[in-house]
Amino acid sequence: MLYDVAIIGGGPAGLTAAIYATRANLKTIVFEKAICGGQIVNAMQVDNYPALPHISGAELGERLENQAKELGAEIVFDEVSNFAKEGDVFKLSASEEYMARSVVLATGAAPRKLDIPGEKELIGRGVSLCATCDGGFFKGKNVAVIGGGDAALADAIYLSGICNKVYLVHRRDEFRGKASMVEKLKNIPNVEFVLKATPEQILGESRVEGLEIKQDEQMKKLNVEGVFVAIGQVSQGARLNPELKADSFGYLIADENLQSSIPGVFLAGDLRQKRTRQLTTATADGSEAIASVSDYLSNKQ
Amino acid sequence: MLYDVAIIGGGPAGLTAAIYATRANLKTIVFEKAICGGQIVNAMQVDNYPALPHISGAELGERLENQAKELGAEIVFDEVSNFAKEGDVFKLSASEEYMARSVVLATGAAPRKLDIPGEKELIGRGVSLCATCDGGFFKGKNVAVIGGGDAALADAIYLSGICNKVYLVHRRDEFRGKASMVEKLKNIPNVEFVLKATPEQILGESRVEGLEIKQDEQMKKLNVEGVFVAIGQVSQGARLNPELKADSFGYLIADENLQSSIPGVFLAGDLRQKRTRQLTTATADGSEAIASVSDYLSNKQ
Repeated sequence: MLYDVAIIGGGPAGLTAAIYATRANLKTIVFEKAICGGQIVNAMQVDNYPALPHISGAELGERLENQAKELGAEIVFDEVSNFAKEGDVFKLSASEEYMARSVVLATGAAPRKLDIPGEKELIGRGVSLCATCDGGFFKGKNVAVIGGGDAALADAIYLSGICNKVYLVHRRDEFRGKASMVEKLKNIPNVEFVLKATPEQILGESRVEGLEIKQDEQMKKLNVEGVFVAIGQVSQGARLNPELKADSFGYLIADENLQSSIPGVFLAGDLRQKRTRQLTTATADGSEAIASVSDYLSNKQ
Repeated sequence: MLYDVAIIGGGPAGLTAAIYATRANLKTIVFEKAICGGQIVNAMQVDNYPALPHISGAELGERLENQAKELGAEIVFDEVSNFAKEGDVFKLSASEEYMARSVVLATGAAPRKLDIPGEKELIGRGVSLCATCDGGFFKGKNVAVIGGGDAALADAIYLSGICNKVYLVHRRDEFRGKASMVEKLKNIPNVEFVLKATPEQILGESRVEGLEIKQDEQMKKLNVEGVFVAIGQVSQGARLNPELKADSFGYLIADENLQSSIPGVFLAGDLRQKRTRQLTTATADGSEAIASVSDYLSNKQ
């Protein structure tokens, strides 16, 4: 079976690509390694997706999956380990081998980790990579948020409404995130900035019992039961083919038609270099990628 | 009252901008001259909006409107006739005057007209600018579709399932639209291509009774009761301020942050120069425009 397009990743970008591909009459296969919906599947409530407020991330993922399936996309729950171009055809290796005339890479991004002692051991036991997912477990407790960008600032604002105290720990003395959010945080009494501070170790045996930081060359301990890591994302997908070009942050680079450095391979969603990573921009990428796939395939005919 | 952002246009781009603006804590006003939802309000069924298939355009518009309102956006049903920058503030003229620190222009595009005798007189009486809206009225009848782009091809495919006969009238001998759609049309028996033909006049008194075309220097009459005009879109919005720059097609030009030629004025949706005009790309523009508005406003502080 030769597919017109193989879409790798069943998040909002990949499934929108599938919706557009099937409607353009392309023989379409989608690979998803776990659950459809991408990073949002863990969100309890999504309120900024236009026309569908108050929906859980899991339901949004399910709706996208059903819509793509109903339109005729084949969804395979399997992980693609790599793909290679052979002549005009791409060969994708998963549990089996698949052939496609074009590829849309929509493998998203994953949260970046601190890589300090205690982090890996205590993930899910006080260490969290998603404040909106796990914040509710820390009602009335002290927590630390690590990071200085918009995501960290937003997490701190969000957690300040739930927790007793929120330490916002950042290695520099200025935040990279939005000034308006910083202003807002300054006026929240239970938020404390801990600046020029580096997390060194997460303490605790079976649960987080504290965070050790280094500040002004001194080690200090923050008494927290939760540590929220919000230091950015790592683009997934570069590992699939050595010829994919990435920027210095690891985000894959596409041209204005979303074509990657490999002709016939298009990028959609959080994995690519761009300014705004939102549901809206992910679905737009899905549509744009398929417009480019259609152009690419008709030029091959 | 000084608003942080005034959004002109209550379609998917404008209302998504309102959703993002209110969530970013910006004092937000939206101007809509008629009904929220933009061009889709007339669509009987929208199937390509991710996660919300089988929805009418009117319901989609209503959902967007309610979501923006619920988040605190003020929606005013009034037409902005022009706006001017006075110092750091924009003064917008509608039935009253409004002041805002930034502007998002999301006035969309409107169908282009043929501008031939009979067109204006018979609009809504056999002449239609929207096949998906009006196709149902022409069951079993003969119709003509005018145009050579994707929209015209899609209209012809759509109408071939409803009408007795569909003439696809195009002034050139090749279509601008997708090759795959042209192939599909070639295999539909009740579609006839009428190429290198110019529409000259739409005939009829109270209803369309025919279409006069010029082909090979000869006047011919097509016996149709419906004429679907699908010759493109005209960007709206340039009239609001003489300093807005447009391309040769009339689409307004934005930089990569969606800022127009006027600092503090951002463009979102179909009115701007871009490749893909879809719901997905309109909502992405709405999000992106507000990211830029936030940056613009914090630099002003």
